Amino acid sequence: MSPPRRYTLSLSCPDRVGVVAAVSSFLAGHQGWITEANHHADVDGKRFFMRQEILADSLPFDIDVLREKFAPIAREFDMDWKISDSARKKRVVVMVSKQEHCLYDLLSRWHADELNIEIPCVISNHETFRGLVEWHGIPFHHVPVTPDTKAEAYARVEDLYREAGGDVMVLARYMQILSPGLCDRYPGRIINIHHSFLPSFVGAKPYHQAYERGVKLIGATCHYVTSELDQGPIIEQDVIRIDHSDAPEDLVRYGKDIEKAVLARGLRYHLEDRVLVHGNKTVVFR
Amino acid sequence: MSPPRRYTLSLSCPDRVGVVAAVSSFLAGHQGWITEANHHADVDGKRFFMRQEILADSLPFDIDVLREKFAPIAREFDMDWKISDSARKKRVVVMVSKQEHCLYDLLSRWHADELNIEIPCVISNHETFRGLVEWHGIPFHHVPVTPDTKAEAYARVEDLYREAGGDVMVLARYMQILSPGLCDRYPGRIINIHHSFLPSFVGAKPYHQAYERGVKLIGATCHYVTSELDQGPIIEQDVIRIDHSDAPEDLVRYGKDIEKAVLARGLRYHLEDRVLVHGNKTVVFR
Amino acid sequence: MSPPRRYTLSLSCPDRVGVVAAVSSFLAGHQGWITEANHHADVDGKRFFMRQEILADSLPFDIDVLREKFAPIAREFDMDWKISDSARKKRVVVMVSKQEHCLYDLLSRWHADELNIEIPCVISNHETFRGLVEWHGIPFHHVPVTPDTKAEAYARVEDLYREAGGDVMVLARYMQILSPGLCDRYPGRIINIHHSFLPSFVGAKPYHQAYERGVKLIGATCHYVTSELDQGPIIEQDVIRIDHSDAPEDLVRYGKDIEKAVLARGLRYHLEDRVLVHGNKTVVFR
Amino acid sequence: MSPPRRYTLSLSCPDRVGVVAAVSSFLAGHQGWITEANHHADVDGKRFFMRQEILADSLPFDIDVLREKFAPIAREFDMDWKISDSARKKRVVVMVSKQEHCLYDLLSRWHADELNIEIPCVISNHETFRGLVEWHGIPFHHVPVTPDTKAEAYARVEDLYREAGGDVMVLARYMQILSPGLCDRYPGRIINIHHSFLPSFVGAKPYHQAYERGVKLIGATCHYVTSELDQGPIIEQDVIRIDHSDAPEDLVRYGKDIEKAVLARGLRYHLEDRVLVHGNKTVVFR
Repeated sequence: MSPPRRYTLSLSCPDRVGVVAAVSSFLAGHQGWITEANHHADVDGKRFFMRQEILADSLPFDIDVLREKFAPIAREFDMDWKISDSARKKRVVVMVSKQEHCLYDLLSRWHADELNIEIPCVISNHETFRGLVEWHGIPFHHVPVTPDTKAEAYARVEDLYREAGGDVMVLARYMQILSPGLCDRYPGRIINIHHSFLPSFVGAKPYHQAYERGVKLIGATCHYVTSELDQGPIIEQDVIRIDHSDAPEDLVRYGKDIEKAVLARGLRYHLEDRVLVHGNKTVVFR
Repeated sequence: MSPPRRYTLSLSCPDRVGVVAAVSSFLAGHQGWITEANHHADVDGKRFFMRQEILADSLPFDIDVLREKFAPIAREFDMDWKISDSARKKRVVVMVSKQEHCLYDLLSRWHADELNIEIPCVISNHETFRGLVEWHGIPFHHVPVTPDTKAEAYARVEDLYREAGGDVMVLARYMQILSPGLCDRYPGRIINIHHSFLPSFVGAKPYHQAYERGVKLIGATCHYVTSELDQGPIIEQDVIRIDHSDAPEDLVRYGKDIEKAVLARGLRYHLEDRVLVHGNKTVVFR
Repeated sequence: MSPPRRYTLSLSCPDRVGVVAAVSSFLAGHQGWITEANHHADVDGKRFFMRQEILADSLPFDIDVLREKFAPIAREFDMDWKISDSARKKRVVVMVSKQEHCLYDLLSRWHADELNIEIPCVISNHETFRGLVEWHGIPFHHVPVTPDTKAEAYARVEDLYREAGGDVMVLARYMQILSPGLCDRYPGRIINIHHSFLPSFVGAKPYHQAYERGVKLIGATCHYVTSELDQGPIIEQDVIRIDHSDAPEDLVRYGKDIEKAVLARGLRYHLEDRVLVHGNKTVVFR
Repeated sequence: MSPPRRYTLSLSCPDRVGVVAAVSSFLAGHQGWITEANHHADVDGKRFFMRQEILADSLPFDIDVLREKFAPIAREFDMDWKISDSARKKRVVVMVSKQEHCLYDLLSRWHADELNIEIPCVISNHETFRGLVEWHGIPFHHVPVTPDTKAEAYARVEDLYREAGGDVMVLARYMQILSPGLCDRYPGRIINIHHSFLPSFVGAKPYHQAYERGVKLIGATCHYVTSELDQGPIIEQDVIRIDHSDAPEDLVRYGKDIEKAVLARGLRYHLEDRVLVHGNKTVVFR
């Protein structure tokens, strides 16, 4: 008993009077039944963001006609827009290294059909999880990364991602820094989980940095990858309380629980078109 | 540099296609500039809820004309609706007993003009806080409550509330149970803070009940008062972690911090017309 | 590079002057190096609880001699006590039904060797997870439960648990109510995860109960199983925020994330002998 | 019905076998009844921290004799130690500027006798809160601070603090940077509340910095003041969730609630001798 098929319209445009009226009148004119709607105008009143979920069966035409009929409105208001279809599962390419917590968590959600996705393949720089992934019926690609072979390795990753028809690439504690070129070619389509509460503790060994500074909470950050390390738009964050009795190893262990939870939430927001990028920030319609 | 004047339209109505289109087209037709908009359709698709903030200066007429012009739409869609004006401060009558935490917290927010309210008076069954309240320039009424004089006392409270032109009555740890009649005459206008995470630990001494059960978190609940004790629609809740080392007195102390925070949030949602009652539940557009 | 071998002494006894002095002098007299120590005296001063972690290599004898030498002190103070050895992995028998989130989470932690456990077997009333479990090299037993065969089924479960040499049985969303006899034979050794913030919403469909009441947070409770349904000593609890836009299905989905986190924390506390039962409550030395 | 009189012994020393045994045997030898005990050995095993609460009436002598008798043990183990007496209220000098939230919160707790303190005076660079403070019967000193008169102003503050017999100085959103000399003369005795989750957003306008970066949580940090701005040992931190719809003004408003809560907790830990400084970090025995 899965939820009924929905189309999701998400857009941003210069803010002016009449955007909501135009979109909602268009939908009402075709008997479109809106199940969820969110709006946001940024604080200086310059840009407007909107997301609408419409019951597919309430409209008298299919998604192609919907796009065609909506296009003139989009042009009139100079919209950056898209419409997605819940009947088409998004394709998530998962990148992992040797840590299991995010991978198991994503596989569990995939198995429960919680995220409405396909995982066309898992790519790793180690063989560690081949058996687990293949047991799920998901192809596994081992692409080793060494200092000398980075260029070839990332070219191979990009080929695999394209061949898999990936909609989004998830770095599930991949532990390697992608090449700037690869990052730049897929803006808003590569998602990373960083193991600190950014902007604190950028770069390597953030839990050890946190231990040294003596903070009382540690966190994790899910963000879009850009060519600047750990500087991309933040999608989701969370923290967990620690205290003086926790060694760096304890921080690593606690951190894993936050990392997988934050990654799963951020990824879900992305998959449901709830995240709209605005400069280096995000609007997240939860 | 206070925020610009806004009108807030909040409504609920039977759900059907075209509500948003009708409201937004109406506003756009008068050049109304929407600064915040929220919608909700309940899960069985039967009732629709909406809240819109409009810049007052963007409309070519005042609030009375706005109401007049909106009335036909409201009738067409069978709406339960109201429009409030940020330029008119709501009048909050505060009821206290002998505990200070919620009272100080509300006075601090009033002093900082954080809630955009008047406090026309504070009513208490004890003299304890007369000096503090009067120092703030706020009238203080002592209305003793004894088992024999309850009827007269609550009649007096109701008179004071009416004379003060109260919009909402806040039981800021008032510790007395209002008469059912009084509760029934002001549905959605009396707000209480209960010192447990409802529905756990209804009634007296909830922290001691929590201690006896050995729970690992305690909470507080801000809700509308109805004639059934602690059963009214919940507006806001929160919890705080405790452990085995905490005695009932510690729970009381921790609890105060949650109580005042939850009451302040719930009250703000109410004052900004973010709370729409739906049966015994609430829609809260945060 | 695993942590060094430790012995963990946990005890409770009637409270009186000299308990700590006796225990710490005993340990110091044998050059025992304490790495972690916790004490608690209950609020009425009647019972005392203690947990000590000692570096195994700091003592001049093995655990059997340690127990033998400690026994007279335990007798003197009328202690309820035990000493466990980190070099002996505890044996956790996992019971599941058809929901995957807790099982995947436990397998992930087992794979990462985070909990220092063996899983001698997984028992389920369905075949769903045989493949996944067996891929991990863990035996899987299918024990169907029908209204007519409950007695035989639970007898079979108990046999399997005994044959596996189980130290603790974990109901990882097992969804069946064990027989009172089974519960009574293993006090403090059967751990359940209940999908509500107890004592709210005992019994079936707690998320639907929460939805009906309109609470603003939902929770999960990890507790020891007793013959009274959902009434056993609480080990750990946590909550997550929801709002009016969440349908019962959303609550179920959010709830899973809390359930697996709370179960994992509660189980870890139990495995590390951090939980001491006190009547129907627990002391948890985190 | 206040809690019974207690002596609190807090200490740190080089870690070695026998510290706990020596201290607990000493106390037991005099029939000292321990109501709360905490230990911590830092991760590299080099330094040991301890806090003990003892019922004053259980000992056969007063605090001076207790100190005298304990001194040889302290010397033997090279302890940094102190013993405080719950019957002597600590003297908290409060520094404020023009923001009310932390001041009202502290006054409320003082009025409820929650913190077991005297407030010998409040010092401010503005007259804003004279009336409120004096209504509570607490002296108020206006010490203006201008770029030209900083040296004299801080000399005056230091004089007032000394004359008041201050045990600790609390910067309750004082908004001025104390002179390095003043900071250095009172290590571990000046407590600040910084309005960010340090180490993120050091310095001025942290909420605006947080807004620009697009973080999803904002926080506050209670720390000891050192001569390096916002770099002192952290006592307590907490965070609150925000989202894209929050303007910088909203962050400021939410932040206030976290600031006052974190300051109150951190101050309480300090007052109860639960905080032991260790380099630039703290051990906090909650």
